[in-house]
Amino acid sequence: MAEAHAARRDRLRQLCAGAGQTAALVSRPANVRYLGGEAPEGSVLLLGAERGGPDILFAASPPGGLADDALRVHVLACPASDPAVAAAETAAADGAEILAVEEHHLTVARHRTLADTAPRLRLGDLGRGVEQLRLVKDEEEIGALRIAAEIADQALGELLESILVGRTERHLALELERRLVDHGADGAAFATSVATGPHAGLAGHRPTDRRVEEGDFLSVCLGATYRGYRSEIGRTFVIGTAPEEWQIELYDAVFAAQRAGREALLPGAACRDVDRAVRQALESAGHGADLPALTGHGVGLENDEDPQLAPSAMGKLDACVPVTVEPGVHLPGRGGVRIDDTLVVRPEADGGPELLTITTKELLAL
Amino acid sequence: MAEAHAARRDRLRQLCAGAGQTAALVSRPANVRYLGGEAPEGSVLLLGAERGGPDILFAASPPGGLADDALRVHVLACPASDPAVAAAETAAADGAEILAVEEHHLTVARHRTLADTAPRLRLGDLGRGVEQLRLVKDEEEIGALRIAAEIADQALGELLESILVGRTERHLALELERRLVDHGADGAAFATSVATGPHAGLAGHRPTDRRVEEGDFLSVCLGATYRGYRSEIGRTFVIGTAPEEWQIELYDAVFAAQRAGREALLPGAACRDVDRAVRQALESAGHGADLPALTGHGVGLENDEDPQLAPSAMGKLDACVPVTVEPGVHLPGRGGVRIDDTLVVRPEADGGPELLTITTKELLAL
Repeated sequence: MAEAHAARRDRLRQLCAGAGQTAALVSRPANVRYLGGEAPEGSVLLLGAERGGPDILFAASPPGGLADDALRVHVLACPASDPAVAAAETAAADGAEILAVEEHHLTVARHRTLADTAPRLRLGDLGRGVEQLRLVKDEEEIGALRIAAEIADQALGELLESILVGRTERHLALELERRLVDHGADGAAFATSVATGPHAGLAGHRPTDRRVEEGDFLSVCLGATYRGYRSEIGRTFVIGTAPEEWQIELYDAVFAAQRAGREALLPGAACRDVDRAVRQALESAGHGADLPALTGHGVGLENDEDPQLAPSAMGKLDACVPVTVEPGVHLPGRGGVRIDDTLVVRPEADGGPELLTITTKELLAL
Repeated sequence: MAEAHAARRDRLRQLCAGAGQTAALVSRPANVRYLGGEAPEGSVLLLGAERGGPDILFAASPPGGLADDALRVHVLACPASDPAVAAAETAAADGAEILAVEEHHLTVARHRTLADTAPRLRLGDLGRGVEQLRLVKDEEEIGALRIAAEIADQALGELLESILVGRTERHLALELERRLVDHGADGAAFATSVATGPHAGLAGHRPTDRRVEEGDFLSVCLGATYRGYRSEIGRTFVIGTAPEEWQIELYDAVFAAQRAGREALLPGAACRDVDRAVRQALESAGHGADLPALTGHGVGLENDEDPQLAPSAMGKLDACVPVTVEPGVHLPGRGGVRIDDTLVVRPEADGGPELLTITTKELLAL
């Protein structure tokens, strides 16, 4: 992986050189990790102008397993000081003229401190340059996502085999998170959501002490982090022997919308068109109101990456971009349905989108 | 609590008026919660110049239980838009001249968007005004911290009664977090740290698959969140029947340093003097090198609040300020000891510092 990280830094270097920037300071943790392999808390990465580095990671504590020869690591003598300030001082001492920083991550106060620290250095904006590089994943990244998805599938599968009635949302969520770790996850990719009865179908529902009851919809959304990469899966079940008519209808509508979204995932497809496919399917089933702002998003080192699948989204999908497709409908007082998969965009010639989260989407009565 | 929140907002309003600022935009989540009682994800609070409000919470989704009449809630029609932009537009439309923002929280990019949105509005800096207000806690806040500490004590106490040898750090950490929730916590206050053998004593150690062995030091650091308030407790134990000589000596040194810190907690004491008391005790025991940057910090709605107990810390302690005292020593390859309490600074006339985390600090052999 050391070579992959060095190649990523060279791509960013080219981007900066094209914009006339002689050095770059990367501070957003996922971006530091993407370019350097690791991101100890608060660390920043300084990219010099010359190809091949040496680039420098400024950290308050030594990283655990950096084995990247092209990357120098500077551990601060005083851990309480800001690594970004040390990086700016180094860039100035090295004769950099324009230091590109991540204005969408640095706070106004920190930016001012950098400007005061090295007054001769002009601060430019790196923008979302690293996020752009992160959009298309290499096969090693997709491999990590595949394992992260498999872990989430396993944790969910085991839960479905256990007795659910009478248990609280909180306990089910904690049990899922324990199972993620049991199966080799670094941890949960985000706070596990378990929603029962009237809560079911709510996006991002925080588990409560409500207990699972017969007849409930139960919706679950979880994900695993594996080597930093985050999967996401959401499923909805019915508790009891047979779902009611309205539950079947609602489930079918959300399922059809989610399938429409999945089928629209192709290289070259506009993100807003994928979103529209989901929305139109739900609208034609009479559930057009109260749709969420997003019907899907990229995943990778963060859980909510670019691209966004939303009505106002710009841009098109590329091959090897992992995204979620996750429509949901919530009927106040009654509950609802969410179905959420992680997929990788692939050309039709390769069989179309690759589904990473393979737990069944049949409506199971548990 | 509605009245308490309104009173806090009035104190901040006075602060702003004194600085010539006619409105304030609070964006840091813990600050929004402190002033408004709740902080739905991404929400911001707009404080108008007039005493008694109405102040406005701008949120992408409706808050759960706001029952604060003096606070208007504006839920954005388009959840994808930035609540801060909507707040700045409102402030401009209301004729505000200078809008104070939290420059230590807003990113450069977001700040620029606000400036572009309302070009006639001058943006000022609120600085850490709300953090300053948050330093001294009222009795309701201390009550929540007391319960948060009690929950952590209970979770830790139960763990000590179970069999530990052969279990991994990861599983012990997950079990502690489950017990926190069992005892009524909203969740863990921070990632629970369980460190065995050579890991013991490392600050912020992330649990691994290492199993507890006979003769190990075992150090544990955990905390509960209760109504938003976060406790912190750290203890170190020995696994097996009798600790070795070096373990007893190291434990006694850290214990003495931690006690020195606790005893230095009095209203009017300089934060750096409390830190120095801890360091001097460790230095006199021959453990002066490799001390952590902080020997303690404030707790409240966040886990790492002001004040800091550090050599360069400015300022003095006040009564009703909750802090941790948490020295640790780690001997590479052998392990180490950390002891961490949450206490509230109280005058000597009231009996001195109030210890919230009451689990014994005797060296237990488990």
